[in-house]
Amino acid sequence: MATLSDDDVQNGLATVPGWEREGDAIVKEYKFDGFGDAIAFVVRLGFKADKADHHPDLDVRYNRVRVALSTHSEGGITAKDLALAAEAEGAVG
Amino acid sequence: MATLSDDDVQNGLATVPGWEREGDAIVKEYKFDGFGDAIAFVVRLGFKADKADHHPDLDVRYNRVRVALSTHSEGGITAKDLALAAEAEGAVG
Amino acid sequence: MATLSDDDVQNGLATVPGWEREGDAIVKEYKFDGFGDAIAFVVRLGFKADKADHHPDLDVRYNRVRVALSTHSEGGITAKDLALAAEAEGAVG
Amino acid sequence: MATLSDDDVQNGLATVPGWEREGDAIVKEYKFDGFGDAIAFVVRLGFKADKADHHPDLDVRYNRVRVALSTHSEGGITAKDLALAAEAEGAVG
Repeated sequence: MATLSDDDVQNGLATVPGWEREGDAIVKEYKFDGFGDAIAFVVRLGFKADKADHHPDLDVRYNRVRVALSTHSEGGITAKDLALAAEAEGAVG
Repeated sequence: MATLSDDDVQNGLATVPGWEREGDAIVKEYKFDGFGDAIAFVVRLGFKADKADHHPDLDVRYNRVRVALSTHSEGGITAKDLALAAEAEGAVG
Repeated sequence: MATLSDDDVQNGLATVPGWEREGDAIVKEYKFDGFGDAIAFVVRLGFKADKADHHPDLDVRYNRVRVALSTHSEGGITAKDLALAAEAEGAVG
Repeated sequence: MATLSDDDVQNGLATVPGWEREGDAIVKEYKFDGFGDAIAFVVRLGFKADKADHHPDLDVRYNRVRVALSTHSEGGITAKDLALAAEAEGAVG
């Protein structure tokens, strides 16, 4: 899977509100009503990630979860990252 | 905490769609898009239940989770059961 | 995947302590120190199950989790059930 | 709850193998057999943390989870941090 061009990354990010590029990754911080909801989001996204065999970096700070996606094997951002970002959007409820 | 009268149970159930009485318990089966979403719901409701120190019976069948609530210490249905049913409704996203 | 003969089921069960046959399924009830540990076990086993695409029935009763395994598509017990029972044993810590 | 003296922090850390001081926090990185086990640990520790109303920073990197504990309200390390570090040790199985 090839890394995306800068234009393709920007076009992709336009489809997932709040996601931004940070170097070789795309990131978003999600905020929840409490710690339990944050952990449940980690579990929900975790199952989707494991099914895709593509695993996000997850930083939990009480009711906030920062998700960072990058395709380390390719050294950059690929369509797999954008796909999992879209799954993360769907995992917020 | 006293058990609720039959009328109070019925009035309470009217506020949580899909919940029904089964003897000394109130129950609802939730359906999700997949197994992972079902488990994430168990976690999300689990945190709310543990905070309330009131724990539901949870039966997971692939993408369906049956939640049953009863106040065993009182031998019936109390306001705690209706409160956690409302929390369960809020935990579906 | 064929269902196992009664002998093969019994030989298989001998390798997973505490697991028993109940009709077309194999079952075990696990007990934990508390509700949180029980839910964490559900998550841990859940990931293993989803990876194997073979999903247990899970009944949570406070600090106890009853796991039931059957291969519904085959109408009986197969090697997949014994394999996931072994994973469940490994998920208790 | 008062912050601990440097000596008390060191004495406390001696009771939880692998935990180290980093400024105003104590930290440890746990490694698991896979992503699912890492997430299950986050859930298990999460329940213990929520019960104690003391929430760790959790950084998940595939099969590794870095746990950082600090008592922000006190501006340093307290007995609550050492207690939750001990709970984290007990949550690895």
